[in-house]
Amino acid sequence: MSRIAYVNGQYVRHTDAAVHIEDRGYQFADGVYEVCEVWNGNIVDVPRHLDRLDRSLTELQIDWPMTRSAVEFVLRQVVRRNKVHDGIVYIQVTRGVAKRDHFFPADDVAPSIVITARRSSPEAANAQAEKGISVFSYPENRWPRVDIKTVALLPNVLAKQAAKEKGGKEAWYVDADGCVTEGGSTNAWIVTKAGALVTRPAENGILRGITRTVILDLIEREGLVFEERPFTLEEAYEAKEAFVTAASTIAMPVIRIDDRIIGNGHPGSVATRLREQFHTATDLQAV
Amino acid sequence: MSRIAYVNGQYVRHTDAAVHIEDRGYQFADGVYEVCEVWNGNIVDVPRHLDRLDRSLTELQIDWPMTRSAVEFVLRQVVRRNKVHDGIVYIQVTRGVAKRDHFFPADDVAPSIVITARRSSPEAANAQAEKGISVFSYPENRWPRVDIKTVALLPNVLAKQAAKEKGGKEAWYVDADGCVTEGGSTNAWIVTKAGALVTRPAENGILRGITRTVILDLIEREGLVFEERPFTLEEAYEAKEAFVTAASTIAMPVIRIDDRIIGNGHPGSVATRLREQFHTATDLQAV
Repeated sequence: MSRIAYVNGQYVRHTDAAVHIEDRGYQFADGVYEVCEVWNGNIVDVPRHLDRLDRSLTELQIDWPMTRSAVEFVLRQVVRRNKVHDGIVYIQVTRGVAKRDHFFPADDVAPSIVITARRSSPEAANAQAEKGISVFSYPENRWPRVDIKTVALLPNVLAKQAAKEKGGKEAWYVDADGCVTEGGSTNAWIVTKAGALVTRPAENGILRGITRTVILDLIEREGLVFEERPFTLEEAYEAKEAFVTAASTIAMPVIRIDDRIIGNGHPGSVATRLREQFHTATDLQAV
Repeated sequence: MSRIAYVNGQYVRHTDAAVHIEDRGYQFADGVYEVCEVWNGNIVDVPRHLDRLDRSLTELQIDWPMTRSAVEFVLRQVVRRNKVHDGIVYIQVTRGVAKRDHFFPADDVAPSIVITARRSSPEAANAQAEKGISVFSYPENRWPRVDIKTVALLPNVLAKQAAKEKGGKEAWYVDADGCVTEGGSTNAWIVTKAGALVTRPAENGILRGITRTVILDLIEREGLVFEERPFTLEEAYEAKEAFVTAASTIAMPVIRIDDRIIGNGHPGSVATRLREQFHTATDLQAV
């Protein structure tokens, strides 16, 4: 099957899918993105992802490249044309193509949009979740506007690569106060020995994760104890469980942080339960 | 004249010059760049710019996309094919094209390279220098690795745009100590009432500007008093002169910072002298 991408109004072969060298996404990281899960033939939480996209665009004063309903339509088209039953769909919007200059271009420069989709294996992801992952701490060194989901991801790339080189799948940023902010591309959670779920408030230097929000709904529905507060790396070392959340990983158990084994070294029951129940709390849009 | 760009081994029409949507420069800002001035038919300070490019690539563990001498050859070719007598030549290198994933791709993924050139008007730049520019302070909010010249420039874009909206041409970043770090795309300088030139040491949270280095040589040659140290925004307000340096602007006098007029409100004699003498201290490579 030849993959198809949507690029600025056209469905093109993925191999040929290109943007101009003076697209501001390429020269300035002047753009934003979203990743939605595709699960069992449905796109997950489209309204929430497009709400967040709207916020990111507004923060950067980038116009929608087309109407929101047109984006929804193309999302479904790209998933369908790529025959993705399980996987992800990716949206990137940039400030468009203009002669290189830091300043915003003239108002008549149209934003660029790219939408791609690809399959992934739920079996492989579940197998990973049954084993759990290792994460490695990394000094927080990003700019303060990580609440905007921009493509200026080089710091995240370097943090995650550093974790990978130690045998990990994710980096956990630790701020000057010794608190975990979030992962390189996930939100960070622990379960205390007393059984309380803990994650950092979304207003403090982290992205308001869509998957995080769904998990909050699930926690309420399941009547679990929840504390929205910063937690230190030391507290995480001593936790009963740890896990990360993101659209592409759902809830993924963490069994090791740095050189410390978490809990009994196996995926925890809370994370596993949340993972299993996850799609019962999401908004599913059939493709 | 149709403009020509060099993209990954080919000279193409600028209009058609494109990179793949999964180039890591587009999705992750995972790349670096250099801008060289083209002056009077010469490329300015090529060895210094390629030394810095080498350092940026090394810091990010990106290989050279081709040999350094091949890059030098293409630089000249692109300038020549675009008939640029005065202007700039731009080099961007990214980690290459790979399926979207924060982690570095496999070793066989080749880095991407784009080289473009364009004309600019020395008369217009000199007219601007005779008037001077306004700059506006902006809270330092970039990651600490601004010593690497990456394309993750969104923070700089927003800082410069904020300055433009107040009528300025540049933003000056001010750190938590009240000290000016650098401009959004320039290095920052003042001349004290006692006549000393002051700029921040290059090891502290700024880029080691090539133009800055040339100015240091000129200062020594001209026997001027120089103090390499941080300076506060307050000290800048009271300075006799202020100016910014970059390859695309050389030395550009600053006549206003925020709502404060600098010196007598006209371009200062030191900045003007350095601007006039600039090309006598550079390495010129005839195209």
